Amino acid sequence: MALAACATGLIAQPALADTVSTKGGIKVKSDDGSFVGEFGGRLMLDAAVFDNDTADNASGTEFRRLRLHSKGKIHGLGYKIEVDFADGDTVTKDAYLQMAVAGGKLTIGQFKQYFTMENLTSSRYTTFMERSYLTSFSPSYQVGVGYWGHYNALGFGISAFNAYQDEDADGGSGTTEGVGGSARVIFSPSLSEDVTLHVGGSALVTGGIEGRNRVRVRAAGHLSDASRPDIVNINTGERSESTIFALEFASIAGPLSVQAEYLGGTFETETVEQDVAAFYATTSYFLTGESRPFNAKTGKFGRVKPRKPHGAYEIAARYDYVENDSNDFEVESVTLGLNWYMNPQVRFMLNYIAADVAEGSDEPNAVTARMQFDF
Amino acid sequence: MALAACATGLIAQPALADTVSTKGGIKVKSDDGSFVGEFGGRLMLDAAVFDNDTADNASGTEFRRLRLHSKGKIHGLGYKIEVDFADGDTVTKDAYLQMAVAGGKLTIGQFKQYFTMENLTSSRYTTFMERSYLTSFSPSYQVGVGYWGHYNALGFGISAFNAYQDEDADGGSGTTEGVGGSARVIFSPSLSEDVTLHVGGSALVTGGIEGRNRVRVRAAGHLSDASRPDIVNINTGERSESTIFALEFASIAGPLSVQAEYLGGTFETETVEQDVAAFYATTSYFLTGESRPFNAKTGKFGRVKPRKPHGAYEIAARYDYVENDSNDFEVESVTLGLNWYMNPQVRFMLNYIAADVAEGSDEPNAVTARMQFDF
Amino acid sequence: MALAACATGLIAQPALADTVSTKGGIKVKSDDGSFVGEFGGRLMLDAAVFDNDTADNASGTEFRRLRLHSKGKIHGLGYKIEVDFADGDTVTKDAYLQMAVAGGKLTIGQFKQYFTMENLTSSRYTTFMERSYLTSFSPSYQVGVGYWGHYNALGFGISAFNAYQDEDADGGSGTTEGVGGSARVIFSPSLSEDVTLHVGGSALVTGGIEGRNRVRVRAAGHLSDASRPDIVNINTGERSESTIFALEFASIAGPLSVQAEYLGGTFETETVEQDVAAFYATTSYFLTGESRPFNAKTGKFGRVKPRKPHGAYEIAARYDYVENDSNDFEVESVTLGLNWYMNPQVRFMLNYIAADVAEGSDEPNAVTARMQFDF
Repeated sequence: MALAACATGLIAQPALADTVSTKGGIKVKSDDGSFVGEFGGRLMLDAAVFDNDTADNASGTEFRRLRLHSKGKIHGLGYKIEVDFADGDTVTKDAYLQMAVAGGKLTIGQFKQYFTMENLTSSRYTTFMERSYLTSFSPSYQVGVGYWGHYNALGFGISAFNAYQDEDADGGSGTTEGVGGSARVIFSPSLSEDVTLHVGGSALVTGGIEGRNRVRVRAAGHLSDASRPDIVNINTGERSESTIFALEFASIAGPLSVQAEYLGGTFETETVEQDVAAFYATTSYFLTGESRPFNAKTGKFGRVKPRKPHGAYEIAARYDYVENDSNDFEVESVTLGLNWYMNPQVRFMLNYIAADVAEGSDEPNAVTARMQFDF
Repeated sequence: MALAACATGLIAQPALADTVSTKGGIKVKSDDGSFVGEFGGRLMLDAAVFDNDTADNASGTEFRRLRLHSKGKIHGLGYKIEVDFADGDTVTKDAYLQMAVAGGKLTIGQFKQYFTMENLTSSRYTTFMERSYLTSFSPSYQVGVGYWGHYNALGFGISAFNAYQDEDADGGSGTTEGVGGSARVIFSPSLSEDVTLHVGGSALVTGGIEGRNRVRVRAAGHLSDASRPDIVNINTGERSESTIFALEFASIAGPLSVQAEYLGGTFETETVEQDVAAFYATTSYFLTGESRPFNAKTGKFGRVKPRKPHGAYEIAARYDYVENDSNDFEVESVTLGLNWYMNPQVRFMLNYIAADVAEGSDEPNAVTARMQFDF
Repeated sequence: MALAACATGLIAQPALADTVSTKGGIKVKSDDGSFVGEFGGRLMLDAAVFDNDTADNASGTEFRRLRLHSKGKIHGLGYKIEVDFADGDTVTKDAYLQMAVAGGKLTIGQFKQYFTMENLTSSRYTTFMERSYLTSFSPSYQVGVGYWGHYNALGFGISAFNAYQDEDADGGSGTTEGVGGSARVIFSPSLSEDVTLHVGGSALVTGGIEGRNRVRVRAAGHLSDASRPDIVNINTGERSESTIFALEFASIAGPLSVQAEYLGGTFETETVEQDVAAFYATTSYFLTGESRPFNAKTGKFGRVKPRKPHGAYEIAARYDYVENDSNDFEVESVTLGLNWYMNPQVRFMLNYIAADVAEGSDEPNAVTARMQFDF
């Protein structure tokens, strides 16, 4: 190999001749591929202007995500460490070791548990600035063990984890500790080159939750701190548990895509039972003809690559809904979006959100914008 | 290109053949220059011994700055993310995307707003361990949009930003939120190879400031926490605003340089008006013959490169002054400095500071030292 | 040099042709070796299940260490910056500049002071998940100046530092500030290729300690927060000081190793005097025939490299003891360990700990496990 020849006779390096590349970050790969070292990050800077109703959301700016990560391979084992430094906090996201087992991947450490589609799609690739309300029920990043496998058009994941959510968590629960398990099955048949069809289902159980068990949503985007009602807020002193099921659907036909998920479940203690449900439907269309990439093996949307030098333009609309049936509480919203993918790594987003909390008790509207890049 | 030839036939790398280099950090550049990934940092470790007067400053050590950064280019767009981890905090400094527009640079994100010369000169290159008192009035790192351009000997910048200052900010204001704009114009004609002349002016307006509007200075260096009077401290419950103008001057003739800035302005609410002014003058001389580098296009001092293996030695003196004319309050100091540039990236500094707060109410003296490196 | 030839004619790079390698992180080295840039990290994820006695230790998981570091050489000077982000904190570990002086190394900045053997051995290479109780008396990472030298079988280090320990420090002291000095002398003669013998001694003095002077131990591993008695807790308002001496011993004969340390000392103020002592003895045996590497120049254990593809297996036992003779208080434990070194950079650990606090007042047992990797 040519570069190996170039590097012979060098100092006692730990490895073979390794190759380096950059897309803004740094990636080094060993000759045989068993070692990879990669350093990168992502930045999302948001601004929001509110037309407030009863709650007083403050217009302003924030770093929604400011993350640095290191990932790669160690003796053939995958690893990733990612830390978010937005707003002066230090929050560990991914922090795991990953092994190839029986054609799939066994993951040990902290990672996103296998539950629902939009939740598992990277924040870099979601259609709107914020995920739908139903993602608030997701366990997100937890310490556990999981396995993801796939056979032909079928994919499935199962994981067991130490349920913990702190106040900083997206969608916001109070501090809770317990145990949980999640599972997801997907079916993504290959219909034609231009058409993707995807269906799937997820289940989540948690138990032995100590402390407050809470699910909050931000009705009108992440800066709408004042319009942030509790959908669930169980704090009886008893241990609580939850059982949640979800269905997912996505279809992509050229520049058009449709995506929808439904979730229903129960939170309970010995004396309390609350039934929740959530639903959203999104449609997106690329004015410039691109098509949303979808990974059929993992059931996640991927990186949009503009066809033309001036980038890709996408318009999108979403209806979003969540309710607590036990006390007739609900939050709903309509979001309109315009995205400009300047290049595959830089995106500007504009969202208009009209939200309705508890049938008119708070009806905030917001115009929000994001600048995003990753490397 | 030779290395490209070396690297052909390799695994499916995302980019072209990329080259790597190190000056202690890591820099990778793609063949066509449109992608760059760079990882680096800086460390400044300080010690101070106080001869206290009325205020009880604690002698000791601190990490003044401990930063890691990632910067580079993404599809030809510049970016930078820099986080400071000194003292167990996590503070975002630069975090922006930058585009070439009409021969200048458009910056979106968090960056130092265009205001005054010493403020914009990197802390790695300032003559003394701490910047002058007048930098306390600078908005420093803020989220906004700015443009910097230059034509021949003229340079100018203008920016609009979301004014926010937390308690950790250098020079310390209370938590404030509002909006602001700043502008700077510089004129740096090329006189001869050995002589630099530079003049400039800056303007800063902020408005709609909610919360306390406060400017503090550390009279005798950054560890002089006890000698840290308020120059401005408006906390009436009304929104406040400020208008500040500043002039800058620098001249370098071989090993000798002179640098001075003047600032004057007003802080006001509906019921309060306070007038402030600040001034400093610095002179520096390289015993070993080096000359302070100055970037005429951006109006900032740069990295000193010692001529000899044993490094460069610089002696310097500064008179520093700030006042609030409305209540006859003032702080002044004289600083003497000795710098040893061990090499272009490692510097040791020794400062003696004799300060006077409010005409003798507190007259602390300090001997401070710094070890600094960057990569 | 071949690669240099490859790289000639390239863009204006700051340095010479540099070579890159990866073992999961990234390392770049300049052609002449005077510049090195290296980015890496370590992750340790722990789980513990307690069989509690009187104190209520919570079974669960935690990131014991989650660190990123940058290190290398700047114009031939060594440097390192390492930050720990475990559990949402930001704690600076190493942060120093290092120079070669008279065959040894002069270190300026924050680093582990020269005191005792296990303390100085990297957490990546210790036999058990947690170091012994006597490490709680170590100053660990402090800002100071130190020199380490070695001549033949003799090694020695001496350092002066700004004593500071915050609540997060391992083994936990209250917040204290003062000054200190430490010294260590080691003798590691080369007996034969398979046999290592090592003896050494350390001394530590601290003085002028303001605030609480406290030494705590975690009786049954790091998650045993409730079984965390004070061995020393002096909080009289007077300044305190301490004088501590320690002896160390290690011997390695093929797969078998024995390691022991003893410590004794005094904490005192004008009105209080407390005498402490600590001791541990460890033995370890590699079922797969490997031998624990030991660096005779620095007196530290090093990285185990498995001989076979399926990794190395080690079994180990430890007796651990600490007492405050002045008030008849003691903590002791027996730990049994099983380690699987999957490869040189990935290790799984299982520890069983039976502890006894103050002669039966609390006797927690714990089973703890760790997944660890570094790059």
